[in-house]
Amino acid sequence: MDISHIEHIGIAVPNLEEAIAFYENTLGLKCFAIEEVADQKVRTAFFKVGQTKIELLEGTAPESAISKFIENNGGRGGIQHMAFAIADGVQNGLNEMEAKGCRLIDKAPRKGAEGLNIAFLHPKSTCGTLIELCEDPNK
Amino acid sequence: MDISHIEHIGIAVPNLEEAIAFYENTLGLKCFAIEEVADQKVRTAFFKVGQTKIELLEGTAPESAISKFIENNGGRGGIQHMAFAIADGVQNGLNEMEAKGCRLIDKAPRKGAEGLNIAFLHPKSTCGTLIELCEDPNK
Repeated sequence: MDISHIEHIGIAVPNLEEAIAFYENTLGLKCFAIEEVADQKVRTAFFKVGQTKIELLEGTAPESAISKFIENNGGRGGIQHMAFAIADGVQNGLNEMEAKGCRLIDKAPRKGAEGLNIAFLHPKSTCGTLIELCEDPNK
Repeated sequence: MDISHIEHIGIAVPNLEEAIAFYENTLGLKCFAIEEVADQKVRTAFFKVGQTKIELLEGTAPESAISKFIENNGGRGGIQHMAFAIADGVQNGLNEMEAKGCRLIDKAPRKGAEGLNIAFLHPKSTCGTLIELCEDPNK
């Protein structure tokens, strides 16, 4: 698997508007997109920092993985996942990870925010961190 | 404050050797340094992914922030912080953050792993995420 860079860092926040205000007004970053991903029951806001995006995520339903993360974290936000850009493709990466004994959440890529193909590795196999593999099908 | 890129992502792990084995043998990344930071009661291992480093952290004492993070996380590892490289200097960044009402953990930079000057913002002011500011004094 060829990991080229960290595509994004996924940060769960209790309130997206408050978090956007902090990232813009205090940190001085610029939000370049806001998107709802109905499938994952989240609203997201994106910022670019060098090569990597910061993806703020707010759950839109209690059963959303983001809402559960915040609930398990005492109502506070925090970093929920990191995403690697896979130069030789997500399906190839998944095949290799599975062959090496890594437990997968997704056996095949699905559509994520920004039209990326994405898939998650299970944190039980990754020393605790939720790791996403992704690729831009238009590149 | 001029954030140039994400300098590193700090990941708490219960067992550093097991985590290094996963990052090297399964993900295919290469550990380029292992360092003990006695001051922070951690052992660290570094990997480079594009512009950004992954810093795995194992606590060396129960009172280490990393050991407490893992304890509060049900014994599991996870992403503990993200660090921004500050092009115009950490002290300048701290002054600006404080002037904007952000609570600081460190009022002045101190030495971190790899000889960097580092300082942390308080997660109560950042929508929950532990954010580190850092600069390489040799650059």
